[in-house]
Amino acid sequence: MYRSHNNGALRLAHAGQEVTLAGWVQKVRDKGFMIWIDLRDRYGITQIIVDEERSSKALLETAKALGREFVIQVKGTVIERESKNSQIPTGEIEILASQLTILNASLTPPFTIEDTTDGGEDIRMKYRYLDIRRNPVKDNLIFRHKVTMEVRKYLSNEGFIEVETPYLIKSTPEGARDFVVPSRMNEGQFYALPQSPQTFKQLLMVGGMDKYFQIVKCFRDEDLRADRQPEFTQIDCEMAFIEQEDILEVFEGLTRHLLKEINGVVVDKFPRMDYDDAMRLYGNDKPDIRFDMKFGELNEVTQHKDFKVFNSAELVVGIAVPGGNAYSRKEIDKLIDWVRRPQVGALGMVYVRCNEDGTFKSSVDKFYNQEDLAKWAAKTNAKAGDLICVLSGEINKVRPQLSALRMELAERLGLRDPKVFAPLWVVDFPLLELDEETGHYHAMHHPFTSPKPGQLEMLDSNPAAVKANAYDLVLNGNEIGGGSIRIHDKKTQAIMLKHLGFSEKDAKAQFGFLMDAFEYGAPPHGGLAFGLDRLVAILGGQETIRDFIAFPKNNSGRDVMIDAPAAIDDEQLKELNLKLDL
Amino acid sequence: MYRSHNNGALRLAHAGQEVTLAGWVQKVRDKGFMIWIDLRDRYGITQIIVDEERSSKALLETAKALGREFVIQVKGTVIERESKNSQIPTGEIEILASQLTILNASLTPPFTIEDTTDGGEDIRMKYRYLDIRRNPVKDNLIFRHKVTMEVRKYLSNEGFIEVETPYLIKSTPEGARDFVVPSRMNEGQFYALPQSPQTFKQLLMVGGMDKYFQIVKCFRDEDLRADRQPEFTQIDCEMAFIEQEDILEVFEGLTRHLLKEINGVVVDKFPRMDYDDAMRLYGNDKPDIRFDMKFGELNEVTQHKDFKVFNSAELVVGIAVPGGNAYSRKEIDKLIDWVRRPQVGALGMVYVRCNEDGTFKSSVDKFYNQEDLAKWAAKTNAKAGDLICVLSGEINKVRPQLSALRMELAERLGLRDPKVFAPLWVVDFPLLELDEETGHYHAMHHPFTSPKPGQLEMLDSNPAAVKANAYDLVLNGNEIGGGSIRIHDKKTQAIMLKHLGFSEKDAKAQFGFLMDAFEYGAPPHGGLAFGLDRLVAILGGQETIRDFIAFPKNNSGRDVMIDAPAAIDDEQLKELNLKLDL
Repeated sequence: MYRSHNNGALRLAHAGQEVTLAGWVQKVRDKGFMIWIDLRDRYGITQIIVDEERSSKALLETAKALGREFVIQVKGTVIERESKNSQIPTGEIEILASQLTILNASLTPPFTIEDTTDGGEDIRMKYRYLDIRRNPVKDNLIFRHKVTMEVRKYLSNEGFIEVETPYLIKSTPEGARDFVVPSRMNEGQFYALPQSPQTFKQLLMVGGMDKYFQIVKCFRDEDLRADRQPEFTQIDCEMAFIEQEDILEVFEGLTRHLLKEINGVVVDKFPRMDYDDAMRLYGNDKPDIRFDMKFGELNEVTQHKDFKVFNSAELVVGIAVPGGNAYSRKEIDKLIDWVRRPQVGALGMVYVRCNEDGTFKSSVDKFYNQEDLAKWAAKTNAKAGDLICVLSGEINKVRPQLSALRMELAERLGLRDPKVFAPLWVVDFPLLELDEETGHYHAMHHPFTSPKPGQLEMLDSNPAAVKANAYDLVLNGNEIGGGSIRIHDKKTQAIMLKHLGFSEKDAKAQFGFLMDAFEYGAPPHGGLAFGLDRLVAILGGQETIRDFIAFPKNNSGRDVMIDAPAAIDDEQLKELNLKLDL
Repeated sequence: MYRSHNNGALRLAHAGQEVTLAGWVQKVRDKGFMIWIDLRDRYGITQIIVDEERSSKALLETAKALGREFVIQVKGTVIERESKNSQIPTGEIEILASQLTILNASLTPPFTIEDTTDGGEDIRMKYRYLDIRRNPVKDNLIFRHKVTMEVRKYLSNEGFIEVETPYLIKSTPEGARDFVVPSRMNEGQFYALPQSPQTFKQLLMVGGMDKYFQIVKCFRDEDLRADRQPEFTQIDCEMAFIEQEDILEVFEGLTRHLLKEINGVVVDKFPRMDYDDAMRLYGNDKPDIRFDMKFGELNEVTQHKDFKVFNSAELVVGIAVPGGNAYSRKEIDKLIDWVRRPQVGALGMVYVRCNEDGTFKSSVDKFYNQEDLAKWAAKTNAKAGDLICVLSGEINKVRPQLSALRMELAERLGLRDPKVFAPLWVVDFPLLELDEETGHYHAMHHPFTSPKPGQLEMLDSNPAAVKANAYDLVLNGNEIGGGSIRIHDKKTQAIMLKHLGFSEKDAKAQFGFLMDAFEYGAPPHGGLAFGLDRLVAILGGQETIRDFIAFPKNNSGRDVMIDAPAAIDDEQLKELNLKLDL
C-alpha cells in the first residue's frame, strides 16, 4: 500500500499522526526556505510542507525539483496549519514531510490541470487521460456512476431483472445504418452491432422474464451531428402484461427517484401532453415547459386584411416575449437576422410592441389596427411590456422556426435554469412519419410499435392520422426517454411491416424469428428506453453529453487519443475474406 | 394493468378476494365436469378452477379450448383448496374463475416447458425464448442479475467507480484475434471490438480515477472451443497506488462477499500457491483443491531400476486414488483406455494397488519390489486401499494428462461437490510463455504486466525464468479471475514490447498513446478481471456457462435463433468500401 490515507481524508483530529500519502503534484510554492506542495488525488488536496528548519537538506532539494503532475509519495506528520484554508475539507492541517519519494516524473502537461483549463477541446480529447484528472470531468464520471447505481437499485427493487443481450446480432432497421462486423468463421457473412436490444427485449417478454432492464451500449453509424456519438448508452426496459399507463407510472417513479436522490428535487406527478398539442403549443415534440411563451396561432385574426404574406401562409403563429418591449429597434433587427440564419430558416419576422399604456406598435401597422393587434395579444397571452414575435409559412417549417426562437429567447432571458427540473410526458405520437424525400412512410418510433386500438384499419385510408401507443419522457426540452406498447401478434406485425415497405420475404428474413415467437404465446408488452448520456448530462445541469462520457469520439467518429479507427493489415483482411474497394 | 397479483403471490390469507391474474397455461386437467388450469408466470404457478356447478357454460368451453402456453387473463375469487399442495407457495388456494380471456394463442411448443424438458440443445437454442420460460434457465438469469447487483454494491461501497469504456477501439493484441468494424466515415479504416478494456482502464488510472470497475462485454474472434463464446462478460477492475497484496485483499473481499450473500457460505482467508507449486502438485495452474490427490513426483524412486519407460522420462508422477484398490482389473483397464484417449493423450499408465495388508501389487512388479513401491506410496501419500496411478513423459505433456485423470477420478468419486467452495490464489506466474510452434515468447498474461522487481534484466539471459506480478483467482478448479500489477513507465514498457517482438514502429503505432500517457505522471497501478459468465456458473453450482447466458452462440459463433451472422447487401458493402473476396 502506497498510502495510509487519501488526500481528502485528514482533519485536525489527525494532528500528530504519522501518515503516508501519495498523489500528483498540483502546485509547488517555493519561498526558498520553505516549500509547500499541493498534493492531489481523486479525493482532494492535502498541503505538504518542507522547510529549512525542520527538514533535511536532501528533502528540500527533492521538493525543489518537483514539477507539476509528478507522482510522489510523502511520509510525514499531520500538523495544524498556521493559516487555515476554509475552502477545502483538509484546510486545517498540513503534512510536515519526513520523506518524499518520486514515484514517477511527468512532462509538463499540454494544458493546465485546473477546473478552468487553458486547453481547447481538441487537445483535451487527445490527452483525455489528463483531462480526466480535472475536477469537472472527474466529477461528471463519478456523477454518472451514481446515477447508474440508483437506476439499478430502483429497478431491481421494482422486480426488474438486468439481462445482457448480445452485441453480435443481425441488422435491425431502426432508422439508422448498422455498424457491421465481418465473421471469419462464417465466410461472407456479417454480424451487426445493435442499434438497440429491441427485438431481444421483446423476446425476453415472450420468454416470460416479465420485467427486464439493461444499461447497454448501442451503436448507430450515422453522419454525426454535434453531440451525437456512434456508440451511446441506453437504459433499456421492457414489461409484460402492462398497458401504457403502467409504463408511465413505473418510469415516472424511476425519474422521480433520480431527481430526489441525485438532485434533491421533489417533483409532483408529471404533466402529460398529446403530441398534437405539443406541436401546436410549442412547435416541438419535446417542449421545455420550465417557462411559458406558448404559441398563439393567429390565422383567424390575421387573414381578414390585405397582408399577402399572412394570407398565403398555412400557419401564422406568434409568441409573447416577456418584457420584450424594452428591446431597442437594433436589438429587434438582430432578432430578425437571427431567425433568418440558415440554421433557423425563417424568411422574416413580424413583431408587435405591447406598450405599457395598452397600445400596440407593430411592424405591420399598415395592415393591422389596434383592435387587430389586441386580438393577437390575447391569442399569444401577451401583456403590457411584452414583444410579440410572429412567423408565418408552412406548418412543418414555421413551427420549428418559432420553437428555435422561443428557446433562444428563453436562454437569453435566463428562463432555462439548469437547477429547475420540468419533466413532461408527451403521448399519442403518430405511428408513421412521411419521409418527404422518398414519399414513403416510415415508423416514427420503430416497426414494433402498436397502433392505437381500432386504428389499424386507417393504415390504408389515412396513414398519417394513425396514432400509436407511443410516448416520450421530456425533461427541460430534451427527450430523455421514449417507448411504446408493442405489437404482440404475428398478423398485426405483418400488416405493419407491409405498410413500411417490407416485402414478405424481407420481413421473414429480418424479423421471422420475432414473428415466429409471437405464435408461441406472446404476452402483451411494452417498454421504454432512456438515453443515459443525455439523462446524466441534464441531471448534472448541463447539455453536452460529451462531458459525461469518459472517452468520447469526435464528429468524424474518431477517437483522437488512441487514433482509431485505423488501417488493418492485409493478412487480417484476407482472413475475413474481404478486399478494400476504395 | 392486466393483473392484480402475479402467480406467486396469493395465499390463504387472500381467500375471498376478487383477483385478476395473467400468465401462461402450464397444464390443463380436464375431468369433464371440472377443469383445473395451472397458470404460470415468472413468479410461480397458481391453480385456476372452472366447474359445471359454479361456472358458466361458456367459461367451461373456453377452458376446454385452452392449449399449452396460451396466454390468458383470469378474473375470479381466491378460495381455499380442497386438496392442498405443499410443494408450491400458492398451494393452499385456487382461483374460482368468473371470467377467462385468451390474450394470445400458442402453437404447440417444440419441446415441453418443464424443468426437465424433452428438447435437445439445438432446438432449445433455436427457440431460446421458449427455453427461457423454463425454471432452470429463468432462474439462472435471475441468479446472474443478483450476482451483478451484489458485485456493483460491494465495489461501489469500496469506492470503485464504474466507468464505461468505448467498444469501437483499436486492435490490442491480447493473444486472440480482434473482431473488426469497418468505418464508413473513415475510408479503408476499421475499429476493433475490445478483447478487454485493458488499455482504457490503465488510462483511467493515469487519469486519477483511483478505483475503477466495469461489468463489460469483451470480444474474441477465436475458433470456438466448447463453452467459449465470441462475446463474454468481464468484471473488469483496476486500482492505483497499490501493490499486489492490496489487490488480493480487495478482490478476496469481493469474492467472500459473493459467497456469503449469494451462497450463504462463509470462507476463511483464501490460501495462496505459487504457480510453480500448482504445476508441480496439481499439474495445472488452476487446481481444484476441494480434494487432495496431490501429485507425487517419482523420478528419484523409479529411475534406479531397469524400467526404460521411466528411466527415459523427464517426469514420472503419480496420484493416489482413495479407495481405488477396489477397482476391478476391468475397471483399471478402462481407466488406462481413458488416459490414452486422444483428448488426454497418455501412452499408458502404470498402477499400484495398495492392499489392506500393507503390501503392494503393481503393473510393473517385474521391475520394482515392495520397498520401491512403498516409497511411491509415501510420495503420493497413498494409504492402504488406494490405487496409485502413474504417468510418465515430458513434463509439459504428462502434467496436464495426470491433471485430467485427477479431475476425472474426483468427479467419479463425488469429490467435486458443487456446494463446496474452495477458492485459491495462484501467484507468481511466469512473465513469458514459449510458443512451441513459433519458438517466440509471448506474454503469459498480457504485454502490460510488470516483471517482479529486479528481474527485468533476466529478460535477455533467461526469459522463461522471469516471474511476473501476476495472479489468478481459482475457484473449484476454474480460473474465475486474473490480473497483474502493470508496468507504469515508458522505458520498461518499451523493453517489454521489444522482447515480445514488436518493432519500435509497431509498438508506437499500437501503444503509443499508452506509452505517451506513462510520461505524464502515471501512478503505480494494477488490477484484475473476473470472467462473469464462469463466475456465475460456478456460484450457481454448474460448469456450463451457456446456461447462464440469455442468448448464447453455438460453437460456430452463430446465433441460431436470429440466424446471425448473415449476408449483407451490396449497397451496404459499397458504402463501407469493401468487396467480398471469397
